[in-house]
Amino acid sequence: MSLKEALAATAYEVEKALDDLLPVPEGAEARVVEAMRYAVLGGGKRMRAFMVMEAATLFGVDRRCSARVAASVEMLHAYSLVHDDLPAMDDDDMRRGKPSCHKAFDEATAILAGDALLTRAFEVLGEPDTHSNPEARCELVIALGKASGAHGMVGGQMIDIASEGKQLTADEIGRLQALKTGRLIQYSAEAGAILGRANSMQRHMLVSYGRDVGAAFQIADDILDVEGTAEEVGKATGKDAAAGKATLVSILGLERAKMQADMLAKQAAEHLDSFGEKAANLRELAALVVARKN
Amino acid sequence: MSLKEALAATAYEVEKALDDLLPVPEGAEARVVEAMRYAVLGGGKRMRAFMVMEAATLFGVDRRCSARVAASVEMLHAYSLVHDDLPAMDDDDMRRGKPSCHKAFDEATAILAGDALLTRAFEVLGEPDTHSNPEARCELVIALGKASGAHGMVGGQMIDIASEGKQLTADEIGRLQALKTGRLIQYSAEAGAILGRANSMQRHMLVSYGRDVGAAFQIADDILDVEGTAEEVGKATGKDAAAGKATLVSILGLERAKMQADMLAKQAAEHLDSFGEKAANLRELAALVVARKN
Repeated sequence: MSLKEALAATAYEVEKALDDLLPVPEGAEARVVEAMRYAVLGGGKRMRAFMVMEAATLFGVDRRCSARVAASVEMLHAYSLVHDDLPAMDDDDMRRGKPSCHKAFDEATAILAGDALLTRAFEVLGEPDTHSNPEARCELVIALGKASGAHGMVGGQMIDIASEGKQLTADEIGRLQALKTGRLIQYSAEAGAILGRANSMQRHMLVSYGRDVGAAFQIADDILDVEGTAEEVGKATGKDAAAGKATLVSILGLERAKMQADMLAKQAAEHLDSFGEKAANLRELAALVVARKN
Repeated sequence: MSLKEALAATAYEVEKALDDLLPVPEGAEARVVEAMRYAVLGGGKRMRAFMVMEAATLFGVDRRCSARVAASVEMLHAYSLVHDDLPAMDDDDMRRGKPSCHKAFDEATAILAGDALLTRAFEVLGEPDTHSNPEARCELVIALGKASGAHGMVGGQMIDIASEGKQLTADEIGRLQALKTGRLIQYSAEAGAILGRANSMQRHMLVSYGRDVGAAFQIADDILDVEGTAEEVGKATGKDAAAGKATLVSILGLERAKMQADMLAKQAAEHLDSFGEKAANLRELAALVVARKN
């Protein structure tokens, strides 16, 4: 199976898991679940989900278990997009080529849908079907909390907002991006290790892989914002420049930024050497991340 | 120790736990943690926290453990208030007698602070210091998820928004309020049972207690909205009537609503008969909830 086929197969499995995990209730609260489903179903590359499931595969984890954790991280990611798109935040009307959640529904519903996706992401991790060992489930909860909270993704978002109009150094941008997008991608690889009860060296290797893929992904995203068209990318481009926002691309220049992304992708793949052929998909994913067009 | 003293002592313990659990980081992300601390520290009756800790005391749970779970539920409650107060939701400028979070900071920071409080609430439950048994920690995560997500608190909030301008029946209002405020109060009592590894009968009794206290609390809140002054209550009153929002008070009338609240408080206390004298504080709390002035 090619990487493209593996990505599609995983996306299908995760879509099914998400559908199962988000049943629509009877009452008037159905509206918030519809908004949650609108935000998380039928879209996105499912890169985070793929990383969870491929990393779990290294340890022979039951795919029904890893698909739940993959669905959970996609819920977490979707919540962050719903809240980021709000008028008080980035004020984006489009997401993945369709109206963003608060445009398709309304602001109040979008806030609640984000809250409920975040809540459900943790609830799913705690449930027995996710892993027979409750210790593993708790480790997933803790790792997701660290990756996505005030010292992770939300912290990165805060730095991003607080930095508007300020001239950041390359190091400061690196830290901002590591928190804002890197930590959740890093978690996705780590989650596979937690599910597989990996030893500390194996877990460390997957964390390192995820960290480098996350950094490469963000640089590639900034490059797309400069080079891509809205049609290709599925959301408005040229936003960083318009907002006067410094990125590694604006500081290093396009060519050096591309070199850095390639170097990170290569380094990411090398962290997985000890896993041999089983990690081929994850290695290819690292290369794909910097070659993508959307 | 009187109930009042016990409440004050618990509030002090929980304040300390919250302070410990929300350290301020070095970077620019400190702002979101300051907003989290603004929202959750130094205010509120800590009723949910008290219910967790008193219920846990019935089983001799270490107070350092139950204080963490109490802090977690207060974070969850605080996040819900921060998001409810946003302009796109209830648009409240005041909370607990001071500017609401988005007024003291800004909307984007308030959205992020709510998100991070919600995230931290779950993370704390997963951490080993919360309970030596990971099964118990997972049960707390699941119970909190159910109580606060789309089928609980957030669902209730959604129904509330979707019901604006509609004439609800007493049953519909009861269901709305059970979800919106009841479930988290019910969870608070249940969390003590989970911490104490209660048997299913004991857990059921505490859940029933929590459900009735939650229902009584909400009716008392609606009565205060009619009878109280803003100064007493610490937030604007008369809002439901101004918004044309039906409550059990507007449907049943003040006297019958008071009778219903008293009946629920009495029934709540009776669920705890089998716990004997140890449950005196929880029984008194049920009575206090309907007698409160703020």
